[in-house]
Amino acid sequence: MNYPNSIKRNYQSNISHRNRGMGLECLINKSNEYYLDINKAVIYKKPTPIGVVDVKYCHDKKLINKAYFKMPSTLDYNGIYKGKYIEFEAKETRSKTSFPLANIHPHQLKHLKLILEHGGIGFLIIEMNDIIYLVKGEDLVAFINNSEKKSLNLEYLETKAYKIKIGINPCLDYLDIIDKIYFKEK
Amino acid sequence: MNYPNSIKRNYQSNISHRNRGMGLECLINKSNEYYLDINKAVIYKKPTPIGVVDVKYCHDKKLINKAYFKMPSTLDYNGIYKGKYIEFEAKETRSKTSFPLANIHPHQLKHLKLILEHGGIGFLIIEMNDIIYLVKGEDLVAFINNSEKKSLNLEYLETKAYKIKIGINPCLDYLDIIDKIYFKEK
Repeated sequence: MNYPNSIKRNYQSNISHRNRGMGLECLINKSNEYYLDINKAVIYKKPTPIGVVDVKYCHDKKLINKAYFKMPSTLDYNGIYKGKYIEFEAKETRSKTSFPLANIHPHQLKHLKLILEHGGIGFLIIEMNDIIYLVKGEDLVAFINNSEKKSLNLEYLETKAYKIKIGINPCLDYLDIIDKIYFKEK
Repeated sequence: MNYPNSIKRNYQSNISHRNRGMGLECLINKSNEYYLDINKAVIYKKPTPIGVVDVKYCHDKKLINKAYFKMPSTLDYNGIYKGKYIEFEAKETRSKTSFPLANIHPHQLKHLKLILEHGGIGFLIIEMNDIIYLVKGEDLVAFINNSEKKSLNLEYLETKAYKIKIGINPCLDYLDIIDKIYFKEK
């Protein structure tokens, strides 16, 4: 992938620390910060849902003493772009040939369908072989409805998905793809 | 307030346990569940943002051992209604005469302005004297821009805000107000 060197170093160092998940997440977060800076879109990563088991007070400040991570029932990121509701999930896979659909929980898929039904823009960002693909929510739902397959293979991604450009600002210009898909006429 | 008895009991019992914040939140969460059930809107409370300090593993499950609550920079609830992005904050006040604007953090106000600017629907739900008011985001921003006052008083709420009906399903029909304000022509 043609990362600028600074990002490449940071990103590859992340990968080398087995922190691939943070690599893609970091690129998306930085892109969202940039979109916010230039007032193009307001998109945030949702906080991870947790269940708090125990809290304690320290100098009048409430601290979490014990908690667990909950299964997410919505997608990772949401916000507003050109007046439209936008929501998406970002996933990386170490496999060089397929993205297992088991990575998307049934609740998340149900939620994605609802977002599309209510007029929102929903999609998936997948990194495979250091290429970052955007899969339209509508395409993902159609694939799941019409296929017995349990994964999106490389051929599917290469023919049906959109490759996201990597740059400096934004690192990952996924809204460029969204413009081409959803705001073509305008 | 004319709560149905079942809700009234539950709600008043919450109040009597000094759990007023949970009372309003509970009504909104239940309303959102109902809106989702009838496929009217997809609106969720965002998870509370936390900073994880320490995790441990128990039977291969990741548990949070130490964490703290972060200051929220967006509003409590967001989602999609009739194709529009919607975001709001819910607040209760024990004061019978005024709602201190200090309850809305500067980051949240900045975020609300951005949501409105980008074509979203943003508002505040305030409970005072057991009445639940909806304050339009545009009105809140205009008030803050044009007034030196540090709070919304009861007179303001009675004249400028919208009273939200309490019922069974949904408990708190705030989308009825949203229809009247934003989808009048349709």
